[in-house]
Amino acid sequence: MCMDAYLELLSKQKDIETIGQISGLLGWDQEVMMPPKAAPLRAEQLAWLSKTRHGMMTDSLMGDLLSTAESEDDGTNPTRSGNLRLIRDAYDKSTKQPTDFVERLARHKSKSIVSWTEARAKNDFSIFRDDLATMVDLARELADYLGYETLRYDALLDLYESGLTVARLDPLFAGLRESSVPLIQGVNVDGGAHDWVYRHEWSKEGQENLSQALSEAVGFDFGAGRRDESTHPFCGGANPDDVRWTTRYDSREPWGAIFGTLHETGHALYEQGRPRNLDFEPSGHANGLGVHESQSRLWENQVGRSLAFCEWSLPMWKEHFPENMDGVSAEMLWRAINQVEPSLIRVEADEATYNLHIMIRYEVEKLLISGELDVDDLPDAWDDMYERYLGIRSPDRKQGVLQDIHWSMGAFGYFPTYTLGNLYAAQLLVAARKDLESVGHTLEDDWREGTFTPLLGWMREHVHARGSILTPAGLIEEATGEAPTPAPFVDYLRDKIGTIYGSV
Amino acid sequence: MCMDAYLELLSKQKDIETIGQISGLLGWDQEVMMPPKAAPLRAEQLAWLSKTRHGMMTDSLMGDLLSTAESEDDGTNPTRSGNLRLIRDAYDKSTKQPTDFVERLARHKSKSIVSWTEARAKNDFSIFRDDLATMVDLARELADYLGYETLRYDALLDLYESGLTVARLDPLFAGLRESSVPLIQGVNVDGGAHDWVYRHEWSKEGQENLSQALSEAVGFDFGAGRRDESTHPFCGGANPDDVRWTTRYDSREPWGAIFGTLHETGHALYEQGRPRNLDFEPSGHANGLGVHESQSRLWENQVGRSLAFCEWSLPMWKEHFPENMDGVSAEMLWRAINQVEPSLIRVEADEATYNLHIMIRYEVEKLLISGELDVDDLPDAWDDMYERYLGIRSPDRKQGVLQDIHWSMGAFGYFPTYTLGNLYAAQLLVAARKDLESVGHTLEDDWREGTFTPLLGWMREHVHARGSILTPAGLIEEATGEAPTPAPFVDYLRDKIGTIYGSV
Repeated sequence: MCMDAYLELLSKQKDIETIGQISGLLGWDQEVMMPPKAAPLRAEQLAWLSKTRHGMMTDSLMGDLLSTAESEDDGTNPTRSGNLRLIRDAYDKSTKQPTDFVERLARHKSKSIVSWTEARAKNDFSIFRDDLATMVDLARELADYLGYETLRYDALLDLYESGLTVARLDPLFAGLRESSVPLIQGVNVDGGAHDWVYRHEWSKEGQENLSQALSEAVGFDFGAGRRDESTHPFCGGANPDDVRWTTRYDSREPWGAIFGTLHETGHALYEQGRPRNLDFEPSGHANGLGVHESQSRLWENQVGRSLAFCEWSLPMWKEHFPENMDGVSAEMLWRAINQVEPSLIRVEADEATYNLHIMIRYEVEKLLISGELDVDDLPDAWDDMYERYLGIRSPDRKQGVLQDIHWSMGAFGYFPTYTLGNLYAAQLLVAARKDLESVGHTLEDDWREGTFTPLLGWMREHVHARGSILTPAGLIEEATGEAPTPAPFVDYLRDKIGTIYGSV
Repeated sequence: MCMDAYLELLSKQKDIETIGQISGLLGWDQEVMMPPKAAPLRAEQLAWLSKTRHGMMTDSLMGDLLSTAESEDDGTNPTRSGNLRLIRDAYDKSTKQPTDFVERLARHKSKSIVSWTEARAKNDFSIFRDDLATMVDLARELADYLGYETLRYDALLDLYESGLTVARLDPLFAGLRESSVPLIQGVNVDGGAHDWVYRHEWSKEGQENLSQALSEAVGFDFGAGRRDESTHPFCGGANPDDVRWTTRYDSREPWGAIFGTLHETGHALYEQGRPRNLDFEPSGHANGLGVHESQSRLWENQVGRSLAFCEWSLPMWKEHFPENMDGVSAEMLWRAINQVEPSLIRVEADEATYNLHIMIRYEVEKLLISGELDVDDLPDAWDDMYERYLGIRSPDRKQGVLQDIHWSMGAFGYFPTYTLGNLYAAQLLVAARKDLESVGHTLEDDWREGTFTPLLGWMREHVHARGSILTPAGLIEEATGEAPTPAPFVDYLRDKIGTIYGSV
């Protein structure tokens, strides 16, 4: 009797997961393959999938089965407990929102994405102002439906990283800010040294071939996935056998394509490494946005922007770009991809300043949701924070408060997961080094030879294969022996900046 | 009250149609984009969609609504009557088959596709023999569930072209056979004249660009569809705004790619021309396989293989293949693409002999389903018929009875729609000429100038926009003023063979 409710729950969950896989494919297709006129009917297809899935998830029979299974769970099987925790979480989040609210929110998202797009194009915040104000109200309303202990904003953070709160984030971010601001201020910018990058055009074919080769080398299985091109790079697809990532190509410089490739490959490796005995179970999913981002940042930054990686990949660069790379050494390449310079646009920021962009958004979101900051005061508050954190000020709104799409979609609480990813990546790499390095042998020695299997294997075992059985913070603690902390990331940054720019 | 049952039926139908669109996209993806390891889980996704759709179609509430709507239909609205006829047909066909039979059939299909593949590869009919015998039994069982008036085989024909029977097909095919066999026998084969084709390799890039240009020129809207590459060319996708066709490329000769392009473009134009006021209604669908094939054959053969089309397209050929086409005239091109020669493989056959391949399969199928031909006697019966119809005999089984996949999938009754397509195409073109030509102006004059809008416009109005409101035969009769007849096709063939090979 005990197994019946749980097994029936899993069998219903299988249909829910299957619909999720199908939606994943249609979403990928929409960004990568779909002809433009197909958009309206594609929206109908996705809406039907979403409605059907939502109907299954919020079915009262589902709630009954869940309660029964929970009351029968003796806690001896972590996977089972994980499944029940995740199904409960999804069920509660879905059923707590009244149907009319879900519809209002969906309608307002469509509307405010349009006004944000126009506002950004016309560099005029007033076009977006009212829709943003309504979106902040809707986010507060959503938080009230979902519930929270201390702060409304906590309910929103929890949507993107289960269990995340301001109380957990504030100390992490404070530690990071205190250490990285002086580091950045000590950097002497010298852009002129990288003129070689702009001497020639970078062929699309070369960028494609190098992207393919690097992704394959670090371990992506192209028999179970694809590489394509899209305006906004992403990693999607259906399941671990069908993982699809994209990048974009710019003939002026190759960094966006190549580090986009390593970034999305990091996400993709995580998806391909999910525990296959948990196909169709929530515990088999990747574990939240922060941990996902840790895998992309690991391969993009910690590995991909290391000097060892440059030394190994230099011959590949030269093979695909013989003219552009003529006379370029591994160190020149490494210095070019590791410039630290405060800038206005988050998605173009370097590793060191990136997190300050995130913290600005985090501080602004807290104030907007608490009501301490009015939408009318937001644009200037934004610029003031950039001045305080990064020492620069946007000359206009489109490089300022209008740069990100997130708020137009109501995604308050999302940005912090990007920085969590950076912190987790550094913390995980330190733990991996403890297991994999020995006297006279570092991971850099592996990378210099193009050997990535030990590190990937470690992530497979300690992160990928663990799915979502634990909470994100629980997973980091299990894998590293320590709760999430900013220290390893700060050490990493200090070390890198010190080597490149002289000690600071 | 009257409208309620009908409108509720249409609203249920909309979900059914949406699932069909999603399946169409996943099917396309499977052939064109999917990484190999994704196949097993893709099968689960498609099975879920199919199961869900089948559940909706056979729901007893659906049956009740249908009966009510039928009893309330006064026949004054042809679209409505068409919808009811088509929903009834699908409902009956689905509900008449017992669930265990559907599963047995699906399982046996998977099994016998495997044994057919092996048998063909090893050139050994005995490997496929037992599975084929079982498949014939299953087809007979299916026909008995579906019901028929005269012949079991009629129930199978009706699956692919609504209302098609042996009584309708026999006279069509007999007329065609009597006329075309002497035509073909009068042809003096002279393959040596087309050596120019094999002097150079045909670049894939050139074939792709020419495919794109020709498809666009005849009217395919690439804003509402795509061209891709696949092993077996097909036209699929989701709906008229998202029509996806494929072709394949061979560096030895370009005919497969270019005429595959025109063929699939013909299918695709039909899909793009469907009546948009009937989105999500069965009446808005293309009208069965025979009419669909008429549109592909029209653009591939009647238009694409005409001298006028060669005259117009020659500069495009020369642009994309300057070396290959050096010194080649429009007439040389036209002769090369219109060689008539009896051959063993259906998919490689020319326009004139193609239908004889179909008739052989049709005769064999009738005998297999009636029980007059035993599976053990099939391979030799096949070869005997090729000798009688085409004057040639296969040296082995793989070029003989094992060449087609259809029977391994249980698709008995499918082949005749290919020939119906040829007949309908010729009959429709004669009717279009009556409306569009005048003294001193033929459609060929249009084509010679690259003007295809008048002919496409005629098809849009008389075929595409009519959806499935009428039965296929009803549509042909409405569009041409005459029931389906082989005469226009025979005239067309006699004319073409006469011009190319001298009168016969």
